[in-house]
Amino acid sequence: MTAQARRGPLDGITVIDLTRVLAGPFCTMVLADLGAEVIKIERPGPGDDARAIGPFVNGISAYFASLNRGKRSVALDLEDAHDRARLETLLADADVLVENFRAGTMERLGLGWESVHERHPQLVYAAISGFGHTGPYRHRPAYDVVVQGMGGIMSITGQEGGEPTRVGTSIGDIAAGLFSAIGICSALFHRALTGEAVKVDVSMLDCQVAILENAIARYVATGEVPAPLGSRHPSITPFAAFPAADGWIVIAAGNDDLFQRLCDAIGRPELSVDPRFVSNSDRTEHHAELAEELESALRTRSVAEWLLILDEAGVPRGPVNDIPKVLADPQVRARNMLVELDDPDLPGFVVAGNPIKLSDFPDFPSRGPVPRLD
Amino acid sequence: MTAQARRGPLDGITVIDLTRVLAGPFCTMVLADLGAEVIKIERPGPGDDARAIGPFVNGISAYFASLNRGKRSVALDLEDAHDRARLETLLADADVLVENFRAGTMERLGLGWESVHERHPQLVYAAISGFGHTGPYRHRPAYDVVVQGMGGIMSITGQEGGEPTRVGTSIGDIAAGLFSAIGICSALFHRALTGEAVKVDVSMLDCQVAILENAIARYVATGEVPAPLGSRHPSITPFAAFPAADGWIVIAAGNDDLFQRLCDAIGRPELSVDPRFVSNSDRTEHHAELAEELESALRTRSVAEWLLILDEAGVPRGPVNDIPKVLADPQVRARNMLVELDDPDLPGFVVAGNPIKLSDFPDFPSRGPVPRLD
Repeated sequence: MTAQARRGPLDGITVIDLTRVLAGPFCTMVLADLGAEVIKIERPGPGDDARAIGPFVNGISAYFASLNRGKRSVALDLEDAHDRARLETLLADADVLVENFRAGTMERLGLGWESVHERHPQLVYAAISGFGHTGPYRHRPAYDVVVQGMGGIMSITGQEGGEPTRVGTSIGDIAAGLFSAIGICSALFHRALTGEAVKVDVSMLDCQVAILENAIARYVATGEVPAPLGSRHPSITPFAAFPAADGWIVIAAGNDDLFQRLCDAIGRPELSVDPRFVSNSDRTEHHAELAEELESALRTRSVAEWLLILDEAGVPRGPVNDIPKVLADPQVRARNMLVELDDPDLPGFVVAGNPIKLSDFPDFPSRGPVPRLD
Repeated sequence: MTAQARRGPLDGITVIDLTRVLAGPFCTMVLADLGAEVIKIERPGPGDDARAIGPFVNGISAYFASLNRGKRSVALDLEDAHDRARLETLLADADVLVENFRAGTMERLGLGWESVHERHPQLVYAAISGFGHTGPYRHRPAYDVVVQGMGGIMSITGQEGGEPTRVGTSIGDIAAGLFSAIGICSALFHRALTGEAVKVDVSMLDCQVAILENAIARYVATGEVPAPLGSRHPSITPFAAFPAADGWIVIAAGNDDLFQRLCDAIGRPELSVDPRFVSNSDRTEHHAELAEELESALRTRSVAEWLLILDEAGVPRGPVNDIPKVLADPQVRARNMLVELDDPDLPGFVVAGNPIKLSDFPDFPSRGPVPRLD
């Protein structure tokens, strides 16, 4: 165990990681960042499919590197008797097993929950799949864009009347990875109290439903079908991106006090007493007219000027940062959200850090190397 | 404690919830669904700001209902000596405190981590804020759209060359709520083992960086600035929404085997041997030409026909569901992802269920009532 692995709340926890590509590896990366030791089991030869996804740096997939830094890799053929015996030895000493095969695969391998639980009653067993281990779709394959489509988020993301828009990050996988990590940590807590281990069954589709937020509530309450709204919020106004002279600025002035500050700051104090814009629901009803008024004022100055003016006025605002600007942001850097890899083949390569900052545990500025296939 | 509250891995855990609107309430909702008892502290009079966000059903905010079902509400003025004494009594018996004020507010109220930790050393203390409790922006206000803009996700979501697009759900808040729940559960595990409680400091901006996924890796590896790509994936092709005769269908055929199955199933087997489309990187390079070829075939049949054909061919695919279709989906229903509220004023009102399915714990088909302001 490395020095880093000893230094988080999951210190001493060993995770046997049978996952590949994204949902599972994202989950076990979060566990590793909390101090768990993650042993990644890969099939001999190609290993995790993500190793083949470009772009590459010195022959290493940047994508694979960003998700698997600091994990150990052990190559095992799960259909080979000798390798299976090695897996059983690893499981006997472990605390958590995570897998993201299609439902039924682990059972076919003799690694279903019931049999693993019988042999290794201490193991928390987390299964992440497209549709979960129950229900009519349980045997179907799924990938991120499939559950983004089926789960409704694509129907509410994009420009008004425009083409379906995928969330630009793989939120179908990532949401499942996060809910799985919550399930695993809560199951470890339960085990610490009772000695009992449970199975955690997480479906990517379920997790998309779980993050739909106000779209479900709005539809159930009104019967109106939620649709894409560009950058604006369905029920809070103004709360969107607006064009300034040289680019876009986001402004969130959802209550009457903030709206008045905004109107004063942009030199249009009369807007805050305009009967169309008095309350948040008035502003939401007349959002297009309000956007036109705000834009005519905002287009007169640069993003940088408005950021300063609105900051002084106490109006929540921000730039629309591209990725280089995010990586250069002083707050992102001050929060150690970009960490280097201690990997001789990836000098200067940075990945996202751990957003869970804990007192009493150090927040390391680097992560262990990318595991080469064993 | 209700029957439901006894039935999850966080059974017996009491959460004092000082949060409002979304990031905090989403976090404590997840904890409640895992069996914790959540006592929501609201300011007397208006209570949680979310109570005022429409639409309303029988005078109750549908939005507030969806996030706070099953919690208890206690109205306390944190600046009143008598109410403060009541809060201290509640904290003495609790396991977790969650707050999502701006950095510095809890300290001004005499409720900062150091002083609370001294008085209640057993309490896990979770602070969720726009920018976290350290760094140059720590005192700035933030809302969802501000961190979606600053954190980079808006720069990679939307149509190519189009206007900035907000993810249609408040992923700025929700990601912070999920990472906070992970931090809290891991801290409870650590407390169970050592008796020590820690502070969890989660920033909405940090969490946006943590979910940028391959965008950071691609930029660091290539220097190319990631941009919005409509519905397609940056490095896996075909992996997007395509127009059929009567609507859109999502298809994920990212490896060579799946691509060949897709080409055969749509009656265009020659595409899989076309030199432009042989490998995933060839297909990604020539994505526009490939999309044109696929669309010309897909436009000849309806979405329903293609769903059947591609399912038989074993190609991961799905419809682009709107919210009513999500709520009617047989898998979503079979997984108990829509639960009713045991609330006489909200008959038939459904909210998203718990996507963390655990063996040995029942997955209840309903949730407790919406707390009225105490």
